[in-house]
Amino acid sequence: MTSRTLYSLCGSDDARPFSPHCWKAVMSLAHKGLDFEERPLAFTAIPGVENGFSKTVPILRDGDELVKDSFEIAVYLDEAYPNAPSLFNGEGGKALSRFVESWSQTQLHPAIVKIAVLDIHDMLDEADRAYFRETRTKALGKTLEEVISDRDAEIAVFPEKLAPIRRMLASQPFLGGDTALFADYIVFGALQWARVTSGVDLFGKNDAVRDWFERCLDLHGARGRSVTAA
Amino acid sequence: MTSRTLYSLCGSDDARPFSPHCWKAVMSLAHKGLDFEERPLAFTAIPGVENGFSKTVPILRDGDELVKDSFEIAVYLDEAYPNAPSLFNGEGGKALSRFVESWSQTQLHPAIVKIAVLDIHDMLDEADRAYFRETRTKALGKTLEEVISDRDAEIAVFPEKLAPIRRMLASQPFLGGDTALFADYIVFGALQWARVTSGVDLFGKNDAVRDWFERCLDLHGARGRSVTAA
Repeated sequence: MTSRTLYSLCGSDDARPFSPHCWKAVMSLAHKGLDFEERPLAFTAIPGVENGFSKTVPILRDGDELVKDSFEIAVYLDEAYPNAPSLFNGEGGKALSRFVESWSQTQLHPAIVKIAVLDIHDMLDEADRAYFRETRTKALGKTLEEVISDRDAEIAVFPEKLAPIRRMLASQPFLGGDTALFADYIVFGALQWARVTSGVDLFGKNDAVRDWFERCLDLHGARGRSVTAA
Repeated sequence: MTSRTLYSLCGSDDARPFSPHCWKAVMSLAHKGLDFEERPLAFTAIPGVENGFSKTVPILRDGDELVKDSFEIAVYLDEAYPNAPSLFNGEGGKALSRFVESWSQTQLHPAIVKIAVLDIHDMLDEADRAYFRETRTKALGKTLEEVISDRDAEIAVFPEKLAPIRRMLASQPFLGGDTALFADYIVFGALQWARVTSGVDLFGKNDAVRDWFERCLDLHGARGRSVTAA
């Protein structure tokens, strides 16, 4: 029996967890070689677990420890399990992972919302649909249908947004260098979110970024590939 | 007498070196606390030094060692002077600095060219002007005047390009974390290039990225500030 539980996010099908941040945590636990039970939740079920410890997932329960936030979970895992492969390879790697996170959050996430927000809505169960539509409409200042009104144009320009990754891949196969680090999982999480919710092809033709993403899907017993594209 | 020479780039005024890549190397040497003589060259003078070792600057002569390319120089310095402050803080930091380099090269550099390419031309001496105009017109597929035809619009949207840095600064004062690393010098180099050649304000109002840039100008005896804005 494992004492480690990762609370993540799902729609009506709990076999299709899709949250980018939860995928970062899943890949981090797998990277450390740690057994864990993933427990996907509906949005509206999150406040009901662990005495309302966090309004968002991922939440990691590791024995007596409770940790929230994907970055904090990665930091926790590296500190708690120093003998397993590092997620940062040093303090410089940890600091620069914050830049990668900020790049992904400001460049990729808003574009994926404009592509997939209605797909995400449609994956949810009834209670979550109402919650999601209300909170997202308020946060985005538009109806979900308005948010995706330029969906095709967003898809068309998305490969350009991956230019920094594409150029870097001429130097090395992963953001982490020869092997994947948490920084890879940050970007993977965003693209896996799009893959599981929308299934849209966000890469260019003969795109080195696609090859990198496929390598990430293959990591850790092809954990990412175990959930198929929408 | 120092045995260390950094060949960099200048226009007709050799007190105003402007190359982004050379600024990365200047800051790297200063970060390591190493004495060096900076020898700014005209573009057309580069093949004439060190027996044509490199077509581009920076070139570092360190005793018997010759190293070119700003990233390679940083790697060399960390290996040759392991007891001085690291430029990467570990292998993860080195790998992720490649991502920062790729982000800067694909997102900031092309925009700065569209803002400053004619300013750069106008800083050069006569021989370099002809060389620069010919090579850049060929590389960009446009006259220099055409390249800057949307200059004002490029300036207006430039602060948005800094969004990943801006968001990251909510977590930490430098890309390197509590202190600057080579990754900071990569982004600093791009913005210093714009500052020295065009003098245009590329930040937003009350912009945390401006504060970070000012902190970088102050580093290492305010080396960056010693060359004033255009």
